[in-house]
Amino acid sequence: MTHTTPAQPPSDRTRVRRIPELAHYDRATLHAIVDAAYLCHVAFADDKGTHCIPTACWREGEYLYIHSTNGGRLVKQLLSGTQACVTLTHLDGLVLARSAFNTGMNFRSAMVYGVFEPVADKRAALEALMDKIVPGRQAEVRPGNDKEFAATTVLRISLAEAACKVRSGGPNDDEVDMARPVWAGTLPLVLQAAPAVVDPQCRVAAPDYVQQWSGRTL
Amino acid sequence: MTHTTPAQPPSDRTRVRRIPELAHYDRATLHAIVDAAYLCHVAFADDKGTHCIPTACWREGEYLYIHSTNGGRLVKQLLSGTQACVTLTHLDGLVLARSAFNTGMNFRSAMVYGVFEPVADKRAALEALMDKIVPGRQAEVRPGNDKEFAATTVLRISLAEAACKVRSGGPNDDEVDMARPVWAGTLPLVLQAAPAVVDPQCRVAAPDYVQQWSGRTL
Repeated sequence: MTHTTPAQPPSDRTRVRRIPELAHYDRATLHAIVDAAYLCHVAFADDKGTHCIPTACWREGEYLYIHSTNGGRLVKQLLSGTQACVTLTHLDGLVLARSAFNTGMNFRSAMVYGVFEPVADKRAALEALMDKIVPGRQAEVRPGNDKEFAATTVLRISLAEAACKVRSGGPNDDEVDMARPVWAGTLPLVLQAAPAVVDPQCRVAAPDYVQQWSGRTL
Repeated sequence: MTHTTPAQPPSDRTRVRRIPELAHYDRATLHAIVDAAYLCHVAFADDKGTHCIPTACWREGEYLYIHSTNGGRLVKQLLSGTQACVTLTHLDGLVLARSAFNTGMNFRSAMVYGVFEPVADKRAALEALMDKIVPGRQAEVRPGNDKEFAATTVLRISLAEAACKVRSGGPNDDEVDMARPVWAGTLPLVLQAAPAVVDPQCRVAAPDYVQQWSGRTL
């Protein structure tokens, strides 16, 4: 799918009002934030209240996908047509300004509003999840059987009504604070791959994607 | 405050139903998950729908704190007494099982239900936030002035109605899959401190907390 970059938010509720200069409404920024995320937070309301559930996610085209067990609260409520808000957030560092109130964080976040719909081709969708986790591994593992697929629901939400907010770079200090004798800058944070831990019962040599895991920055 | 460890969830909606053996309802687990998080996701509903907002957070005793600008949607709605759900999630790694459906992630998450209340002593509360970001830095930066404090609202939510879910360790494979010739184990992920970036206009030597930042695992 090809989209032109909209300069405007797709709806009133996706218009970033707090520090609007950090807002991004283009597809490339949204796709990059979703693709870098292993998990998202799904907010929705039911008769018990408003909930916020973390769950694995992936993207195909203009949809964000999740999956869960049949009959759980998440699946039951989302399939009933309830409006949901999906948020994905990457923390990129602490921003140490010269004043307390200009201190903050660097981050990339995306909010998606909409209604989830069930995905009929669960096999293709869950293979895309595996491809996100480890490209190529789907061909090595035991694939899902009928019972496993029958117990699982795959859902997707359109990325049409979305907004991103990105803060990067150093502190924005007030001019009056620039002479203050305090260190200023950023303390970056990265999600980093640590050494793989082999299952004690595994007798198979580590493939390339395991050997090359540690030290990667995601 | 001292609490005995409850073996049971504090409410019906905090009872973990999906893989209940991963549930934790004790204070120590909850506090550790909140204290390790720089940000949380706050879900709430208003007349525009259900929202999920990422924001900085910190803990004092049995409360989770957030802050935001006066007059924003978040502050206005939360101060109206709307029920909220706050979720904090740490991703600890990918779990590579021998089958597609046993593949998953290691994580620590906490969900908190309740109603936010305004915090009168904003100065003390925001100093606690600074202490979380960089202990000791509050004494170095320009403190907030009256105008800055007046434009900011600090809110807190009780940690009483909360549940945690923690998955750690290696894959749990089905017995029938154990002989499959595929590597099995975990690919850990850590939030790691990367080299500090000094502000180009900073003429102050890096203090210990900046020099010792890089390489830390958070």
